[in-house]
Amino acid sequence: MWLEMQLWMIIMLLLAMDPAKLIRAALYALSPTNQPHPINVVAAAPFYSSYPEMTDFERSELHKWAGDARNYDKDEPYIEFITSPNNPDGVIREPVVNGDQGKLIHDLAYYWPQYTAITSPVNHDVMLFTVSKCTGHAGSRIGWALIKDKEVARKMIKFMEVSTIGVSKETQLRAAKILGVISDSCVNPTLDNFFEYVQSLLTDRWQRLRQVVKANDLFVLQKYPLQYCPFTKKFSESHPAFAWLMRKGSEDDCEKFLKGHKLQTRGGEKFGSYSSNVRISMLGKDEDFNIFLQRLEAIQELPDGN
Amino acid sequence: MWLEMQLWMIIMLLLAMDPAKLIRAALYALSPTNQPHPINVVAAAPFYSSYPEMTDFERSELHKWAGDARNYDKDEPYIEFITSPNNPDGVIREPVVNGDQGKLIHDLAYYWPQYTAITSPVNHDVMLFTVSKCTGHAGSRIGWALIKDKEVARKMIKFMEVSTIGVSKETQLRAAKILGVISDSCVNPTLDNFFEYVQSLLTDRWQRLRQVVKANDLFVLQKYPLQYCPFTKKFSESHPAFAWLMRKGSEDDCEKFLKGHKLQTRGGEKFGSYSSNVRISMLGKDEDFNIFLQRLEAIQELPDGN
Repeated sequence: MWLEMQLWMIIMLLLAMDPAKLIRAALYALSPTNQPHPINVVAAAPFYSSYPEMTDFERSELHKWAGDARNYDKDEPYIEFITSPNNPDGVIREPVVNGDQGKLIHDLAYYWPQYTAITSPVNHDVMLFTVSKCTGHAGSRIGWALIKDKEVARKMIKFMEVSTIGVSKETQLRAAKILGVISDSCVNPTLDNFFEYVQSLLTDRWQRLRQVVKANDLFVLQKYPLQYCPFTKKFSESHPAFAWLMRKGSEDDCEKFLKGHKLQTRGGEKFGSYSSNVRISMLGKDEDFNIFLQRLEAIQELPDGN
Repeated sequence: MWLEMQLWMIIMLLLAMDPAKLIRAALYALSPTNQPHPINVVAAAPFYSSYPEMTDFERSELHKWAGDARNYDKDEPYIEFITSPNNPDGVIREPVVNGDQGKLIHDLAYYWPQYTAITSPVNHDVMLFTVSKCTGHAGSRIGWALIKDKEVARKMIKFMEVSTIGVSKETQLRAAKILGVISDSCVNPTLDNFFEYVQSLLTDRWQRLRQVVKANDLFVLQKYPLQYCPFTKKFSESHPAFAWLMRKGSEDDCEKFLKGHKLQTRGGEKFGSYSSNVRISMLGKDEDFNIFLQRLEAIQELPDGN
């Protein structure tokens, strides 16, 4: 059994796909084809803003978006996305619905040591990965999936064959090379460990962001627990790819408020959450991030509270 | 108007996509969203074997496969694929339904000088191209579309953004380089013209295939008219990427018959046609093609006609 699982894992590894397509392939593979109604698809808010559109835009009879997993109480089959660490808020997540008829898709795009402690090996039924957030090569459009069930893997392969025939050979070759170089950097002591290097950059950015947020006292940032990471052999907080910022004591539209200060963010409503929240990218260029911090620091509370 | 069209053509050219996805993006863009029923999708048989599955496999409420365009007689909106030259039979095609409410997708994957005379510039509403059959880089998974209507172009871009976010940068760079080199070979007289070179290879293969077919008198091949090509400045027959072969005087399953002689082909039923036809790839390696011809040549009619 273990050997067979290993084999399919390897097959799926070779069958890399566009990360957005991996999500849609998993949806396709987990949707029953013998039901009169589409299966409900949920994720706990705040969720990755593309899930609703990816689920519904082709108006498939196989699946339909059913919103926030926390509000899901139907006694019927469902698919739940678990993005851990979560996009947009960086929180480590578990399934929320915990119903009898749930099929789970673990989106592990951010489960890498630069963002979070790798507290344990993961062993879920459907696990999706991407080089986009691992190495920063988002433009290569390549990811991979580890799948336990042979039939689910077969259906995902079918999805890929029909929707795209195959994956760009150039990209597969380059991604394999990049992952090889990064892997070497983790085991060869004469090389700089890629994940530790990126973690140090993110730690610095997060420290500076927390200082600015603390200083002007207008916002609240998501907090993360201190955890031990066997990979880095250190205790550390998470340093997510996005910061989840909330206006303190105000339910006003935070995206609009920040835009008034020439700061481009993504409002919470896009993630099924409140407009008092925004998502901030922590992965921009140094220059952009520095200007962002300067402008955030310059914001002063007006006397009338606006 | 012309300038605007040009602009959108250029935008679509930059927005290259996986060729299979281009087909699905065009279907998505041409499907009405305000109708209670899915729009009918047709193509004249024999048609590209993936059209039915690409149209239906996600069970979209937007469109559904409605079979052979020659049998379509409903007085309602429809989408017609026109593959010209056609896959599998290499025939130059025009729309078949010619209804009032038709939207046409011209799939021009094979409209290149090595396969057919380029008798005139094409000027259809929706035109799809791919490097796969133009240069042979099928593994790169990249194609492009020329679209006249701004709204259709916008919806195709939307399809790409949701289904895949973007196109592999590595592939775009390599495809641009390859197309540049091939383009140079057509205008620089010191270089071998790519299309003429491939045409000469295909002409040779087709001549040898026709000799074998004539010699054993068991099969019929599709015939093509002699046409003048302003690009090559010669009169020539078509030399399609696939040969469309029919068993002479027998309605037996031709794929099965040839398999009995260790010849792998694709049966006509997969293309919405008869099992007495098969499609043969003309684009394999020299060694494979030569073995194919040897085995085809060795087939003898048995005394009992089997």
